[in-house]
Amino acid sequence: MTAKIVQIIGLEDFPMVKSGDNLAEIIVKTAEKNGVEIEDGDIIVVSQKIVSKAEGRIVRLSDATPSVEAEELAEETGRDPRLLEFVLRETNHVVKASREIVIVEDKRGLVCINAGIDKSNVKGKDCYSLLPENPDESARKIRNEIMALTRKKVAVIICDTYSRPFRKGQVEFAIGIAGLKPFKDYRGQIDLFGNLLKVKNVAIADEIACAAELVMGQGREAIPVAIVKNVERAELNEKSTVKDLFISSQEDLFRGTL
Amino acid sequence: MTAKIVQIIGLEDFPMVKSGDNLAEIIVKTAEKNGVEIEDGDIIVVSQKIVSKAEGRIVRLSDATPSVEAEELAEETGRDPRLLEFVLRETNHVVKASREIVIVEDKRGLVCINAGIDKSNVKGKDCYSLLPENPDESARKIRNEIMALTRKKVAVIICDTYSRPFRKGQVEFAIGIAGLKPFKDYRGQIDLFGNLLKVKNVAIADEIACAAELVMGQGREAIPVAIVKNVERAELNEKSTVKDLFISSQEDLFRGTL
Repeated sequence: MTAKIVQIIGLEDFPMVKSGDNLAEIIVKTAEKNGVEIEDGDIIVVSQKIVSKAEGRIVRLSDATPSVEAEELAEETGRDPRLLEFVLRETNHVVKASREIVIVEDKRGLVCINAGIDKSNVKGKDCYSLLPENPDESARKIRNEIMALTRKKVAVIICDTYSRPFRKGQVEFAIGIAGLKPFKDYRGQIDLFGNLLKVKNVAIADEIACAAELVMGQGREAIPVAIVKNVERAELNEKSTVKDLFISSQEDLFRGTL
Repeated sequence: MTAKIVQIIGLEDFPMVKSGDNLAEIIVKTAEKNGVEIEDGDIIVVSQKIVSKAEGRIVRLSDATPSVEAEELAEETGRDPRLLEFVLRETNHVVKASREIVIVEDKRGLVCINAGIDKSNVKGKDCYSLLPENPDESARKIRNEIMALTRKKVAVIICDTYSRPFRKGQVEFAIGIAGLKPFKDYRGQIDLFGNLLKVKNVAIADEIACAAELVMGQGREAIPVAIVKNVERAELNEKSTVKDLFISSQEDLFRGTL
């Protein structure tokens, strides 16, 4: 009998990424240096931070001229108006603004703290990273280039770290997807005892992002890419988008609970 | 150079679990049959459903006599009053009750749909599984027995499937933990460029539960146990409890957002 084994491989000695770098090339070369073969069906998970760096999505607080709106939000929340200027530029609408937290729905449709703008592992005293302009598009580009370089059919997930309601601590979410169906949908299927499964629709892209974080880390580990192998339940799909994971507040069954 | 590799091993041909079964023995035997060696540092992820079955936490709707409160909730939500009788017995307080959904904080402190009571993969037309009475205690018992059988120092996570606010689909959460610190806490550490990490506190137990689901599945796969190897970032800890992952509504930064 052979057990079913998923492997999560963290690529060591990944070079520091800077604006203009070709991530696909770096990933393929670093995998080679690590002795890791990229194969058909592999899912390559890439941290948001290096995608933002490669795409030049780093801003300096000192370059911001806060709008009236940013100044008002700064007053309300006790935060730096220059940071809030960048947050508001990335925002569809503010979901919550208090002295503890600023949560927005960003222009991509992601509900996140500070529009995903973040300081960790960004060089430069007043430098912050913005999310990639279009993370699905970033994932698609990386995927296409890796496939061209390797002749293997892979999927790419761009992941970022999220706080969650009702639960302490953070986990990874997929924020961009290429080549992978974000769900494993059991609805309409029959379980072991003939019961119809009515609800089960697993957000497998988020689960893969979480699995990748087990080797990636958030601090000085400097492992921004993981290669995930043998996820038999993942379905490759050309038309995937992370937007399928978003839910409108009308549809959200948790509305009114917080 | 050798890459860092986490392995998620799904145990195939796991026997059907019934009330009174010794899960630790079954896990150790099934790992052996699968040719999987249990080693120091392994994290063994066990699905809630088989823990509930082994502990006899299966109920029949026809055995319930709905209380007045259950009848009223049935009226309000259009649900079976017998099911709601079981839900209310497991509940601290109802968070939301509508015709679409019943969300409660259960007596363990978990915020979940129908108090975690579930029909899938439960035998018998009107039979449902309740969550284990005390999932931390269940995890501790399984862990102690596996350690006695194998002489290896392992951790155990009991996982269940959760819907999430702001996001479609479900992922796994840890609902019981033994021998593992639920977080990898980066707060107070320094990143690659000397920035102080102020927020990062990764809910690694939830991430491991998600990783395990990649081999376990929700339907007819019948793989209720995964063995997770080489999570170097996980810290073994004797005093762990899943309650560390719970957040009060006062502390929850998302309060007022839904």
